[in-house]
Amino acid sequence: MKTIEKYQELIVNQIDLFEKNRGDLALYDPVSYILSIGGKRIRPVLTLIGTDLFDGNIEDSFQSALGIEMFHNFTLLHDDIMDDAPLRRGMDTVHEKWDVNSAILSGDVMFVEAFVKVTSCKTKYLRSVLDLFNITATEVCEGQHLDMEFETREDVTIPEYIEMIKLKTSVLVGCALKLGAILADAKDEEANLIYDFGLNLGIAFQIQDDILDVYGDAALFGKQVGGDILANKKTYLLLKALESADKSQGEELNSWLAKSEYNSDQKVKAVTTLFTDLNVKEKAEKVMWDYYDIAIESLNKLKLNEEKHHYLLDFAQGLMQRSK
Amino acid sequence: MKTIEKYQELIVNQIDLFEKNRGDLALYDPVSYILSIGGKRIRPVLTLIGTDLFDGNIEDSFQSALGIEMFHNFTLLHDDIMDDAPLRRGMDTVHEKWDVNSAILSGDVMFVEAFVKVTSCKTKYLRSVLDLFNITATEVCEGQHLDMEFETREDVTIPEYIEMIKLKTSVLVGCALKLGAILADAKDEEANLIYDFGLNLGIAFQIQDDILDVYGDAALFGKQVGGDILANKKTYLLLKALESADKSQGEELNSWLAKSEYNSDQKVKAVTTLFTDLNVKEKAEKVMWDYYDIAIESLNKLKLNEEKHHYLLDFAQGLMQRSK
Repeated sequence: MKTIEKYQELIVNQIDLFEKNRGDLALYDPVSYILSIGGKRIRPVLTLIGTDLFDGNIEDSFQSALGIEMFHNFTLLHDDIMDDAPLRRGMDTVHEKWDVNSAILSGDVMFVEAFVKVTSCKTKYLRSVLDLFNITATEVCEGQHLDMEFETREDVTIPEYIEMIKLKTSVLVGCALKLGAILADAKDEEANLIYDFGLNLGIAFQIQDDILDVYGDAALFGKQVGGDILANKKTYLLLKALESADKSQGEELNSWLAKSEYNSDQKVKAVTTLFTDLNVKEKAEKVMWDYYDIAIESLNKLKLNEEKHHYLLDFAQGLMQRSK
Repeated sequence: MKTIEKYQELIVNQIDLFEKNRGDLALYDPVSYILSIGGKRIRPVLTLIGTDLFDGNIEDSFQSALGIEMFHNFTLLHDDIMDDAPLRRGMDTVHEKWDVNSAILSGDVMFVEAFVKVTSCKTKYLRSVLDLFNITATEVCEGQHLDMEFETREDVTIPEYIEMIKLKTSVLVGCALKLGAILADAKDEEANLIYDFGLNLGIAFQIQDDILDVYGDAALFGKQVGGDILANKKTYLLLKALESADKSQGEELNSWLAKSEYNSDQKVKAVTTLFTDLNVKEKAEKVMWDYYDIAIESLNKLKLNEEKHHYLLDFAQGLMQRSK
């Protein structure tokens, strides 16, 4: 196994190679742009890790890993249009820097390119790879649909919320690892266990994201603390608070949700106090660790050698400690 | 070989089956909608024809043919957003009936579904099918990009225009036929010849479309005659007219292109008169028949039996006579 930084470096090399060989049309400029503005490349790194875990040759997985990164960036590109987001990783979003039409069409061609790259594998793995990627891509679209739908729904339940984050973000984490495993000729059972590890770790990570958005250290977290509260985002914390609140707490919470004019600091402080009174942080942490434990159970079932087992364990623990 | 109507009926049956088994999410409503509002289903019909030509079992091609129709409709869905088109086949476009975000995301999931269906084939054909579809999907995006880019460019050449219509519409005609041929185990050479037949027939068809938009019978053509002229669309006719015009004709033509306020009938009449004076209809017909002839050359090289040869010949001739 290599360090995460080494895997990241290998992915960045692949992105550079893509850049050198891409088409000349201006259609590809936004594709280059969004690939260039960084991110941790965690998903393609997981594909390389998946291959190394099962003693495959990671060079055989470079193209598919790049395809996973392209797919992820394609979803960011289209999601940013739908969310009317001005910034992505501190830079102008594609529809801001170019226009909505360019963002739609460059996204589409990037999606095709993701298929091309993901399926650039030995033909004996092609059916498995394609089936996995097709299902994952469908699920990610469904997750984004649910996320948008939840914005205007008042009756979102916690199980529905978990299903949404699973589809929108976690399945791609599982897919990235499983893809690497398939390309290393792992057995079906092993490939499915590494998928489950990624899927459940992804859910835990997303719930942690909700917690950090309220209780995180702004400097370490890298986002504005309280952003979800200001946006009335139906996170695990808000849904749990609404579920746990007594009559007067419920009325106070709903009055903050209904206000169209308010002082941001006051709203964040008041809602956070309600969350704290209702112990939603602890409740969210409990659920987060439950999903983490399910992930570790899958890891244990894999019966990897000690080095590999600890590599994944360290990775998972590192992910869960990102701003403690 | 079956009648076109019979093939169309088989495709409609597949669309009905998809409808019965599709996901429940509202995300799929626009997918159902755009598939339901008709069209001639010509591309999936060509896939079935491609399979029958090489003595394959068309039942093995139903899913892939449906995938081609889904891909085509996905492109219409996203193109309609980009063109801000209110109507498609006389019905509200998806972004009008729902909204832009729904049209983007339903288009995306429809694109995945197109991949799923197109690649629902025997595994031995999977690599060939996927390579063909990946290239075609990329080219169609590139064609749409060029079409949009041409709107704001004043220096579009006729070869560039031909390249654009080839990418935007004709490659999918070639792809549809070749896909059917691959699934019937046709030899590479045969599959490539049927592709060339479709590709060049598609270019001829598109140039005919330009001609009919000016000189067609509105009732038979099914569109407003003169629509391209009113939109200043850089069709073969306009590009040829600009190329052939003397100084005073060029000035007159450019003055009509520059006017922001005009009587529609007057503009259509004046530009049509210029086109007629410059013989652009005849010039366009010459190029159209040149591409038609290239298509027929590929057909001749295929050495199909007489029934099949005449079937394709009749099909091609029928296409070229659609409003004479």
